[in-house]
Amino acid sequence: MKLDNIDILIENGDVLTINSEMERLENGWIAINKGKVVEISNDPQEKQKYQPTHTINAKNKIVMPGFINTHTHIAMAYFKGLADDLPLYTWLNNHIWPKETAMINDEFVYHSSLHGIAELIKNGTVMFNDMYFRGSETAKAAIKAGVRAVIGEGVLDFPVAGYDGRDSILKYSLSLIEQYKDSPTIDVSLSPHSIYTCSIETLQKVLDMSKKYGLLLHTHLAETKKEFDDSIAQHGKSPTALLNDLDFWSDKCIAAHSVWLTDEDIDILAEKKVNISINTKSNLKLASGFMPLKKCFEKKINLTQATDGVASNNNLSIIEEISTTSKVHKALNHDPTFLPAEQVIKFPTINAAKALGKKELLGSIEVGKQADIITIDTDEIEAQPIYSPYSHLVYNLNSNAIKDVLINGKPIMLNRQLLTLDENEIKDRAKFYQKKMLE
Amino acid sequence: MKLDNIDILIENGDVLTINSEMERLENGWIAINKGKVVEISNDPQEKQKYQPTHTINAKNKIVMPGFINTHTHIAMAYFKGLADDLPLYTWLNNHIWPKETAMINDEFVYHSSLHGIAELIKNGTVMFNDMYFRGSETAKAAIKAGVRAVIGEGVLDFPVAGYDGRDSILKYSLSLIEQYKDSPTIDVSLSPHSIYTCSIETLQKVLDMSKKYGLLLHTHLAETKKEFDDSIAQHGKSPTALLNDLDFWSDKCIAAHSVWLTDEDIDILAEKKVNISINTKSNLKLASGFMPLKKCFEKKINLTQATDGVASNNNLSIIEEISTTSKVHKALNHDPTFLPAEQVIKFPTINAAKALGKKELLGSIEVGKQADIITIDTDEIEAQPIYSPYSHLVYNLNSNAIKDVLINGKPIMLNRQLLTLDENEIKDRAKFYQKKMLE
Repeated sequence: MKLDNIDILIENGDVLTINSEMERLENGWIAINKGKVVEISNDPQEKQKYQPTHTINAKNKIVMPGFINTHTHIAMAYFKGLADDLPLYTWLNNHIWPKETAMINDEFVYHSSLHGIAELIKNGTVMFNDMYFRGSETAKAAIKAGVRAVIGEGVLDFPVAGYDGRDSILKYSLSLIEQYKDSPTIDVSLSPHSIYTCSIETLQKVLDMSKKYGLLLHTHLAETKKEFDDSIAQHGKSPTALLNDLDFWSDKCIAAHSVWLTDEDIDILAEKKVNISINTKSNLKLASGFMPLKKCFEKKINLTQATDGVASNNNLSIIEEISTTSKVHKALNHDPTFLPAEQVIKFPTINAAKALGKKELLGSIEVGKQADIITIDTDEIEAQPIYSPYSHLVYNLNSNAIKDVLINGKPIMLNRQLLTLDENEIKDRAKFYQKKMLE
Repeated sequence: MKLDNIDILIENGDVLTINSEMERLENGWIAINKGKVVEISNDPQEKQKYQPTHTINAKNKIVMPGFINTHTHIAMAYFKGLADDLPLYTWLNNHIWPKETAMINDEFVYHSSLHGIAELIKNGTVMFNDMYFRGSETAKAAIKAGVRAVIGEGVLDFPVAGYDGRDSILKYSLSLIEQYKDSPTIDVSLSPHSIYTCSIETLQKVLDMSKKYGLLLHTHLAETKKEFDDSIAQHGKSPTALLNDLDFWSDKCIAAHSVWLTDEDIDILAEKKVNISINTKSNLKLASGFMPLKKCFEKKINLTQATDGVASNNNLSIIEEISTTSKVHKALNHDPTFLPAEQVIKFPTINAAKALGKKELLGSIEVGKQADIITIDTDEIEAQPIYSPYSHLVYNLNSNAIKDVLINGKPIMLNRQLLTLDENEIKDRAKFYQKKMLE
């Protein structure tokens, strides 16, 4: 019998494919070669034909697609917990913005991004959709770590992060497009920050650019009541309607937060197939509000999950996010059957892949897709006994149960040890910047 | 210089005392002898006078009082995740109660309790207030583990868990009182399950017994809207008012859940100094509702934190609970300054100790109090950098950061390894019962 050489075999796992039939293979195995999934099965005979270079034993582990985080400000890692329990505008004006002005340069963004990306990996994340400044440094860090990213330079009308204003930010965005046009793991988005930081003219300019280059649009939408009320006062329409009138919306848009939506707004987002990035914990912690998730769900809007930045969250745990999302919206709707575990687990996997234009490549474990896969241990006392892996993912486990992360078929973390980054160096650097931050 | 022999020295920690001044000692140390705290300081000279038998190096760790969980059904460990995403009554009638009837006996309760207590320790818990059946078995498990407990036999009017009804449950309760009257770590409560499972006569009987023996009363209060509405329909008053008219309430009461409270109910609970046990995640997951936390807080009701049982939660993480509590109630009250980290951290520590009548002994790190202390690692990448330990406890960390647990000055867990229980035996037993459960 001739053996097929393959790069990696993951075996003995409880495989949750998250494919359209939500197939689960207990005691399943996955053959991976050249970055792609070659075969998925639980037939022990069939497995014999493969001769893997590496084998990962996933006994007592869930094996599933890696998480995709659809709204981050990853370079804010060093701002984690710098200021809490404050009103949004005090927090921004007195703490975050002054510190950003003082601290941000290429070197800071690179190191803080590297730190944040290390956290992403520890939280089982294989791809993130980022909006911040000096994105080339974040992209460099993502490439070093081996993590996929969509990089968007936050567009604002006023001077920020070393920029004198919008035009220099757009110029930087153009250079990003050029720089990463052939990258297999880095995509570039255009990221107008919000309707309250971008003029109509700016929004138009960005929209035209996105059409010209075929790029994803990533924006904050209707995060706070103030944003909603100001929009009504200033424009006579909601933030969603304002952007709709500019012809902004399409299935190539990620609308982060989307807390303050009218029923008409929801209809607009549904009709235009806009992707929503849900940021539950950030919205709770900043008291921004509760987004109308059930209505959006009923209108079949593509719902994805995100963490927001650690400055407002304060961690990058997708498991905590889906757990909180599922529970909070059960209570809000007086319905414990709403958002069952098998449903919400799609938010940071297949739904997120679709939102970022990667549905054919990522978001589920299927033959021919990229092998972006995580394993999650269920053998700790706190997780035993286990009757349903979906239940445990959403209601029982935390991110420390995530043991292995493969991206493009390459192990990035094994048994919680990062393989592409030096953990001690990253921690030492964090301590160095922490001191600088407090100077 | 004559040296003082002591049992344990915890040193180099970020000590959060949770005393009335919320004193924090960076690079602090704690001298422990014969189960008690002897000295707390950050004076390096002063430390020299102690000669400890054991030293715990708490560098890069938070050192704080262990958590006290004020509402558990710990012997339900084996029911964890057995059924989810269901309406409360389907869940109880079709899943939990039939399984309980089939499974519960002394042996099951002992082993499932042992499992649940192992989980409690892994979550940094030093004491729990339990309501379930066959409580002597739970007490035995707690004693074996070295964890403090208040044990209450759930009183219901109908046959349950091998009992033919109320009187046999009360008889069992009397035997518990006798059995544990001299125990240094086990207290006994009387635990009428709720107003919808106990008749007025039963409630009266239990109340008389509690007065006779000077015992804590522990009950479910106003958990669901149905309970509230039924009480109004049947008695013409709310559950809280009904119990008040029986003279049930005092500062020796733990009212678990307390979701459906009118303003008058809150006034009653405040006036009678009743302790509330908040069960945020359980209330969200079962869609029971949001308790009026801010109003209770403003009326200075003693608020404590609990997890409820793992069948409805589905873990015993106090860190997740306080994090969710703080964030959800910020959002509900449109106020990000409500329940800051320094406030909510009192719920599962000093407030809980007070609720269980242990304010002089537990709940804070103070000279003369029992040494029930945990250490929490802040040196992982996900926790770096750290600007405030309170912020990290509530917004950043998860229970896996809890490394050491001391109860009564005795190490129960060191570096996440249980010292009083055999982890493999507990896991094997869980797998055995899991199979039985599915037969």
